[in-house]
Amino acid sequence: MSDTNLSLVLYGIKDLRLEERPIPEPGPKEVQISIRSVGLCGSDVSYWQKGRMGNLVVTSPMILGHEPSGVITKLGPEVKSLVVGDRVAIEPNRPCGTCYYCKRGRYNVCADLHYLASPPQDGCITRYFCHPARFVYRLPDNVSFDEGALVQPLALGFYACERGGLRVGHYLLITGAGPMGMAAVLAAKATGACKICVTDLVKDRLEFIRKLGADVTVHVKGDEDPELTAQKVVEYLGKEPDVSIECSGSQSGISTAIYGTRPTGTIVQVGLGGANTNVPLVIATLKELCIVGNAGFANKYETVIEAISSGRVNVKQLVTHRFSLEESLQAYTAVLNREGLKIIVDCTKSKDL
Amino acid sequence: MSDTNLSLVLYGIKDLRLEERPIPEPGPKEVQISIRSVGLCGSDVSYWQKGRMGNLVVTSPMILGHEPSGVITKLGPEVKSLVVGDRVAIEPNRPCGTCYYCKRGRYNVCADLHYLASPPQDGCITRYFCHPARFVYRLPDNVSFDEGALVQPLALGFYACERGGLRVGHYLLITGAGPMGMAAVLAAKATGACKICVTDLVKDRLEFIRKLGADVTVHVKGDEDPELTAQKVVEYLGKEPDVSIECSGSQSGISTAIYGTRPTGTIVQVGLGGANTNVPLVIATLKELCIVGNAGFANKYETVIEAISSGRVNVKQLVTHRFSLEESLQAYTAVLNREGLKIIVDCTKSKDL
Amino acid sequence: MSDTNLSLVLYGIKDLRLEERPIPEPGPKEVQISIRSVGLCGSDVSYWQKGRMGNLVVTSPMILGHEPSGVITKLGPEVKSLVVGDRVAIEPNRPCGTCYYCKRGRYNVCADLHYLASPPQDGCITRYFCHPARFVYRLPDNVSFDEGALVQPLALGFYACERGGLRVGHYLLITGAGPMGMAAVLAAKATGACKICVTDLVKDRLEFIRKLGADVTVHVKGDEDPELTAQKVVEYLGKEPDVSIECSGSQSGISTAIYGTRPTGTIVQVGLGGANTNVPLVIATLKELCIVGNAGFANKYETVIEAISSGRVNVKQLVTHRFSLEESLQAYTAVLNREGLKIIVDCTKSKDL
Amino acid sequence: MSDTNLSLVLYGIKDLRLEERPIPEPGPKEVQISIRSVGLCGSDVSYWQKGRMGNLVVTSPMILGHEPSGVITKLGPEVKSLVVGDRVAIEPNRPCGTCYYCKRGRYNVCADLHYLASPPQDGCITRYFCHPARFVYRLPDNVSFDEGALVQPLALGFYACERGGLRVGHYLLITGAGPMGMAAVLAAKATGACKICVTDLVKDRLEFIRKLGADVTVHVKGDEDPELTAQKVVEYLGKEPDVSIECSGSQSGISTAIYGTRPTGTIVQVGLGGANTNVPLVIATLKELCIVGNAGFANKYETVIEAISSGRVNVKQLVTHRFSLEESLQAYTAVLNREGLKIIVDCTKSKDL
Repeated sequence: MSDTNLSLVLYGIKDLRLEERPIPEPGPKEVQISIRSVGLCGSDVSYWQKGRMGNLVVTSPMILGHEPSGVITKLGPEVKSLVVGDRVAIEPNRPCGTCYYCKRGRYNVCADLHYLASPPQDGCITRYFCHPARFVYRLPDNVSFDEGALVQPLALGFYACERGGLRVGHYLLITGAGPMGMAAVLAAKATGACKICVTDLVKDRLEFIRKLGADVTVHVKGDEDPELTAQKVVEYLGKEPDVSIECSGSQSGISTAIYGTRPTGTIVQVGLGGANTNVPLVIATLKELCIVGNAGFANKYETVIEAISSGRVNVKQLVTHRFSLEESLQAYTAVLNREGLKIIVDCTKSKDL
Repeated sequence: MSDTNLSLVLYGIKDLRLEERPIPEPGPKEVQISIRSVGLCGSDVSYWQKGRMGNLVVTSPMILGHEPSGVITKLGPEVKSLVVGDRVAIEPNRPCGTCYYCKRGRYNVCADLHYLASPPQDGCITRYFCHPARFVYRLPDNVSFDEGALVQPLALGFYACERGGLRVGHYLLITGAGPMGMAAVLAAKATGACKICVTDLVKDRLEFIRKLGADVTVHVKGDEDPELTAQKVVEYLGKEPDVSIECSGSQSGISTAIYGTRPTGTIVQVGLGGANTNVPLVIATLKELCIVGNAGFANKYETVIEAISSGRVNVKQLVTHRFSLEESLQAYTAVLNREGLKIIVDCTKSKDL
Repeated sequence: MSDTNLSLVLYGIKDLRLEERPIPEPGPKEVQISIRSVGLCGSDVSYWQKGRMGNLVVTSPMILGHEPSGVITKLGPEVKSLVVGDRVAIEPNRPCGTCYYCKRGRYNVCADLHYLASPPQDGCITRYFCHPARFVYRLPDNVSFDEGALVQPLALGFYACERGGLRVGHYLLITGAGPMGMAAVLAAKATGACKICVTDLVKDRLEFIRKLGADVTVHVKGDEDPELTAQKVVEYLGKEPDVSIECSGSQSGISTAIYGTRPTGTIVQVGLGGANTNVPLVIATLKELCIVGNAGFANKYETVIEAISSGRVNVKQLVTHRFSLEESLQAYTAVLNREGLKIIVDCTKSKDL
Repeated sequence: MSDTNLSLVLYGIKDLRLEERPIPEPGPKEVQISIRSVGLCGSDVSYWQKGRMGNLVVTSPMILGHEPSGVITKLGPEVKSLVVGDRVAIEPNRPCGTCYYCKRGRYNVCADLHYLASPPQDGCITRYFCHPARFVYRLPDNVSFDEGALVQPLALGFYACERGGLRVGHYLLITGAGPMGMAAVLAAKATGACKICVTDLVKDRLEFIRKLGADVTVHVKGDEDPELTAQKVVEYLGKEPDVSIECSGSQSGISTAIYGTRPTGTIVQVGLGGANTNVPLVIATLKELCIVGNAGFANKYETVIEAISSGRVNVKQLVTHRFSLEESLQAYTAVLNREGLKIIVDCTKSKDL
């Protein structure tokens, strides 16, 4: 095994450095993984450019990256479910495993949750990484490392669909055509949605998301009345959506969802807005809507891997750029410049190929 | 049978009249009921004093009253489930029975729902009233007509508890100690809530609701920060509530519920506020709360009648005043003056007693 | 409109007659439909050949057929949701609409359910048929009458999938490759099942169902130990199924499902067996399985029509034979001889084409 | 702290010995507990008298007892949720914490579940015992150690009620009036059941269970037709039960539940019968019943402790005998002789009192 561990470390605002770190040893229930593909995400860029994302602030050097796949190189002494050589996807959640929520399967709201590349938890743009075996999942032979890296964003989409009770036959509204909206479209198609409408302020994003599978789109003007937007949604869909997934975090997005969703329908709130949001709550009340908060995801990796492996979802189409670990700064610069769609950093060492 | 049908009719703002109306004949699937007890409600007073409640406006003469019990006096030709002489409670819902929602048991959001004493649907402060048999429920011998009249407000409480997934062992927050808050307390105790906290601006209401079964109360100051109120709720309960039932319709109420409810908990929104409400939606999202809209109730009469009959809930304690049909104007004046708690109008004719 | 109403009437065992009947007039909430395509089903053949199916016995002349589509020709006076000329699928359920179960959306267990072509309720192999408007569904332009007729068998499949909680990512076992098994395969693919195993005693059926979408099949020998069959199922699938749909009604089928399904999984029991069935209940208990009874379907027509219209399910492939109403006796003879797959009787009159 | 650890060890069939064992030290996430009250259970007696229970066989010396309470005496280095001196109830589950089921909160079906006093896992009739902190629960001041010991049997009852979807207003059938039936009655009353019927072969048990809260009982004759028993159940209750909890493990019990439960109702199968059970599955199918397997319990300790502390359930009435640890052999002899109801072994050392 290599005796160096090249890693991409964020030292402060706009201060990203490639440096050698010691190779970590797995704890009793952990595995050591030779990282292969890591998908890049806007949250990494936020830490890099602003030193924070929302209330989370980087106060000490932190390795970036939270969408990894790899190959197992070492097992902790208590690990029985995996073997050295397994090709795996790594779920970035590291909850406490013992609290009220962990015991009930809702570990994504664990108060002691460590999430990869959320300060102070290191991420995985590195050669070797250790992780609890229970959050490491074997990849079938027909799922590539790049696809393994994309399980994470898709897990967000599949989780939102599940939380919304989306089922075959349903009509779906997605407000916001960014990365989360895209994941939601892919997941919703696989879950059985029969017609999907996406709204956004940016025309180009809407054009792209139609290629991913959205059936109709509504281009929203900056100050448009959400009730009007909702009318367009219903008109374009042909009827009220059964489920809405709010991915914009905006007052306009949630208001459109409330006006548009059919009585007794569900709105999954994924987007994070400001401290307060002004919403037509009385409409949601009279229509008996459920507004379901959604924070990350839990227990979705198996589902996504099956969906990819069985061909129900095509994630390869999302990968537009690939960089080596040594080029990872250029990779982030490309994300910053909004180049392409999903950018992968390949952490494989030449001799491992 | 009597050949007169004395009824309390609202002709316009502050214009309530007792008048004789024809005795109605039941349709094929209806029953004719000799009305006995009718509970009075604030919505009736709103129609009387303002000619409206929210968007609902009285535009033609309307009989008041929507919390009735009585005795069946005649059956429509297709009615087989009831017999003449049955003592019954009457559910005020009259949905279409054929739409998407009616077919799925969610008839309270039927677009063609007629609700007693909601314009233009006549209410039941009258001697004889006809109603679809499917919304008429037999009362056990040990349930009185007054208790039968109180099934309606309790149904609101039991429905809210069910929608909130309230179960034995749960801690509950109720924001608002008015009639809906009271119904929620009674229903929650019967449903198994182990500790209940109620918040309100009015001290007297809180004192009373403690007698009904609330364990702790928080007296909220007019401009209090909801985050502070929520802290008090959690402190007094000893932990975060699992479920909250918002009965005030105020921004403060829903905000308190969002700050206070435990992660993955449920908030049932019953109170109706203004066109828009400013809420800390981002907190609800990160805690994965469900905010469940609640509009009236459906399919709860059997449950409430069982709960009363088996002694799980004591509604008799709510009845503080009784008036005859002839005195019904005085009865509403008492409601207007906030006298007592639940006021009953007894529509029984002397010879029927 | 035509003044004759040619109908296929079962007079007794092996006594099917084409005869003219009066054209029925719609009741207040009914529509009159000019029937187009009707799918044939094994239950019709059972009535024809044995005069009964299970406990249901034909005691007076009954029109056959319960998988119809058509065009609306007349509206009852209270019908507002449809118009003359609408192309429609007809759900064969006619429940009472007023009982405990109907009010909760579970109308398929209504004690007073009339199901088309279940004695004594007439079926729809006839020119004109009247039906409650609430069970008549408009077809999109891109759904043909033949597809409209096939909504009924698919509704059985989609309902079973929903009752089983089948979701994207799941592995599914179907025991029995007959018509119900086929409907379940099609519905399960549309619902997101990632891998499907079907078991049957007949090899040819298994070969055919693989063409419909089953991923793997297990050919069961007549006296095979269900525990062994279950082992093969798990081996072929690669893991234990999350959900099983039992379509055979046999002791072997349910036992295989109990041995094979993963802990906490669900078995939907659709097949109807004898008075008693010997099952390894203790295994189901220790694995915390849910065994969900399934009787017909409710509230699935909209879902199926959306799934056909959006291309999520291909039902056209099932239609192998078509006969005119005048040839309907030949059509049933073909079903009796197990010719083809789904046989359609076209009830269109020449001048209506 | 004491330097001896007196324990009750089962060496083989009818070979129970009191012996000194080393005092165990807590692992990183464990706590050491000074055991106080331990409730005795029939399964212990089965191991003692037969060396086995079902498929579970004692092959090496094993400490008995799995219904414990105590006081924390030492913390493992990673434990933060508890402190030394905490009075606690101990949940006997010790699942792996990492498998598919553990991650979803269904740890009671974990394939690597160790349950106290199920071979080869030692039980807790001992002075000092170590246990994972996540399965140790603080007792409120008003809950005694004896009540803390009784949380375990009650957890079985509350879990069964939850699995059955039992809610306020429901009618309940319990088949079998033994310890599980008793726990179910207490839990069901606290959960809101309005009327409870219990069936059993033994009259005395039925008399006793009426004192605990059963409203009506049916004394079943040995060879009685279950359909007849079900008719009596429905007659005595006044209507069909919404939920049934099968606690007998007998063919007669599950058959009665299937015949008796109302359409769309739920049967919770708790009793463990033989390898195969002959049941009227076709009736369950046509009535769309859910038969829900139930194996132990998960995530119920908090609920039960709240229910005891708030007075919703009275468990003190169950304790009829108390013995010291030194007298524990006599205690088991009393259980063997079916003396009293719940027998407690007090493991407190004199100087700890």
